[in-house]
Amino acid sequence: MSLSQPSETSLFSVPPYVRQAQYHETDQMGVIHHANYLKWLEEARIDFLTQCGMSYRAMEAEGIVSPIVEVNCRYRQPVRFGDSVRITLWVKQYTGVKLTLGYAVTREDGTVLCAEAETVSCFMNRDSRLISLKKEYPALHALFENISQNHQTDVPEA
Amino acid sequence: MSLSQPSETSLFSVPPYVRQAQYHETDQMGVIHHANYLKWLEEARIDFLTQCGMSYRAMEAEGIVSPIVEVNCRYRQPVRFGDSVRITLWVKQYTGVKLTLGYAVTREDGTVLCAEAETVSCFMNRDSRLISLKKEYPALHALFENISQNHQTDVPEA
Amino acid sequence: MSLSQPSETSLFSVPPYVRQAQYHETDQMGVIHHANYLKWLEEARIDFLTQCGMSYRAMEAEGIVSPIVEVNCRYRQPVRFGDSVRITLWVKQYTGVKLTLGYAVTREDGTVLCAEAETVSCFMNRDSRLISLKKEYPALHALFENISQNHQTDVPEA
Amino acid sequence: MSLSQPSETSLFSVPPYVRQAQYHETDQMGVIHHANYLKWLEEARIDFLTQCGMSYRAMEAEGIVSPIVEVNCRYRQPVRFGDSVRITLWVKQYTGVKLTLGYAVTREDGTVLCAEAETVSCFMNRDSRLISLKKEYPALHALFENISQNHQTDVPEA
Repeated sequence: MSLSQPSETSLFSVPPYVRQAQYHETDQMGVIHHANYLKWLEEARIDFLTQCGMSYRAMEAEGIVSPIVEVNCRYRQPVRFGDSVRITLWVKQYTGVKLTLGYAVTREDGTVLCAEAETVSCFMNRDSRLISLKKEYPALHALFENISQNHQTDVPEA
Repeated sequence: MSLSQPSETSLFSVPPYVRQAQYHETDQMGVIHHANYLKWLEEARIDFLTQCGMSYRAMEAEGIVSPIVEVNCRYRQPVRFGDSVRITLWVKQYTGVKLTLGYAVTREDGTVLCAEAETVSCFMNRDSRLISLKKEYPALHALFENISQNHQTDVPEA
Repeated sequence: MSLSQPSETSLFSVPPYVRQAQYHETDQMGVIHHANYLKWLEEARIDFLTQCGMSYRAMEAEGIVSPIVEVNCRYRQPVRFGDSVRITLWVKQYTGVKLTLGYAVTREDGTVLCAEAETVSCFMNRDSRLISLKKEYPALHALFENISQNHQTDVPEA
Repeated sequence: MSLSQPSETSLFSVPPYVRQAQYHETDQMGVIHHANYLKWLEEARIDFLTQCGMSYRAMEAEGIVSPIVEVNCRYRQPVRFGDSVRITLWVKQYTGVKLTLGYAVTREDGTVLCAEAETVSCFMNRDSRLISLKKEYPALHALFENISQNHQTDVPEA
């Protein structure tokens, strides 16, 4: 979980997550089933954290899990099998206890907004006890603070 | 799509949807993965509509599909493999164009609130054109109006 | 994991597993996606073991997991959203180390054979070490032996 | 897993399909759930056909669907969240009516064989009538014949 230290003022950006919509993700309406978007958000979230220097796998190995406590998703345009989608995400809020992320799912070329979403996650130890990263994992907390303050995203327009 | 006609003033209620949490729905956190709740909501929604006299299958056979345009879910307590959950749902709003449903996912005995959710769905024909049930399918509209006004739910307390 | 002791010679039978095919299990071909059958087999398998007095949950609590090492499935007739299917299963072979089960997936009324399948599972402890139930869990072994010898199924005809 | 030697003059090969194992694909055993492998095989199959010049999407647009009629999978080594897998596939048999493919799922570096599989698919029109590509779609048939005869794979050793 090392992070090449960005200077305090440097902004950094992370490439968006790109993903093919799969046949097994369609339903008989002929589009990607809406539940699958939550899986895509998860993939994008884990990819983002990894790129920020925070391996989800390593985090779990240390005994921290990060369950979703809330998800909100607005479906704008259907995604079909074979479409390639791009998921951009950004930190909306980080409190030391909860992390709120925003997401935009667009066509790969960014032209069409397919969905907008928000997730709230918390942090727990293996006994399902809520933990404050701020108190119990200060290094991890500093990393989240840094991401929260210095990560820059070009949020797609609706 | 016939409905045994309730009298204009009669309230009716529909038994909640009961469901076993399955092994294949768990993730390595040892709980049901959060994306699966959206599948459960769908099952409960289709079951509810069927019990109200509106077969989703028949609706699709007539060329109407009902995509989800928004979903909001708050996860309260984890559900584990082998748990039996009960999903209660109710109409929050029906406009003739959009249907907003509320959901409560509890343990089967109703003691623990596991999740609260809301979905907004619209109605489309097979060409993905938005339709107004009120204008184009008045019988179906009347049925939704009736459900909306006369269905009674004991909404579980948080 | 108690089992109401069947006498040594008594045959017993277990009601088949019945299941609705769900909307979220369809794909754009308009039928249930073939990968979902493996989930149905798992549900039927766990239901069967539970009915035989062997709770999968309790087994895992004791530190035994039972991964699938082989699955073979022949798809005969498509299953569609709203169909109700019946899954009958039987022990083909039990060696003390491996368990081979046979499955028939039919319409609920038994008239149409939708799929035939076979799974081979083994038993492992939490460290992913293969275990011999015969040697390490003689009570569990006796239970499997009993199921293997005395469970009677009316296997549906193709 | 031998391959009938294609003639030297028109061999072609297709890069294997590479895929990250996702968190939402795990189960509480801490490994990728066995049903998900069938989805991976499908992704690899569609990717392979696309690379061979046969877009699955275009095939469906022409009214041809290709349902799976049989799948056999042997799970050798577990795959875990974060692992990257490589899926190699080859034509075992093509009869003009049925297509049998072989698959090897390995770690991305090819060192560990995680699963071996085989699928049999057929071809149907939208009315679920079995079709013979040989008779009804000679151009598509020629393409499959060509793939079948000239595609070369380095099949991983077990």
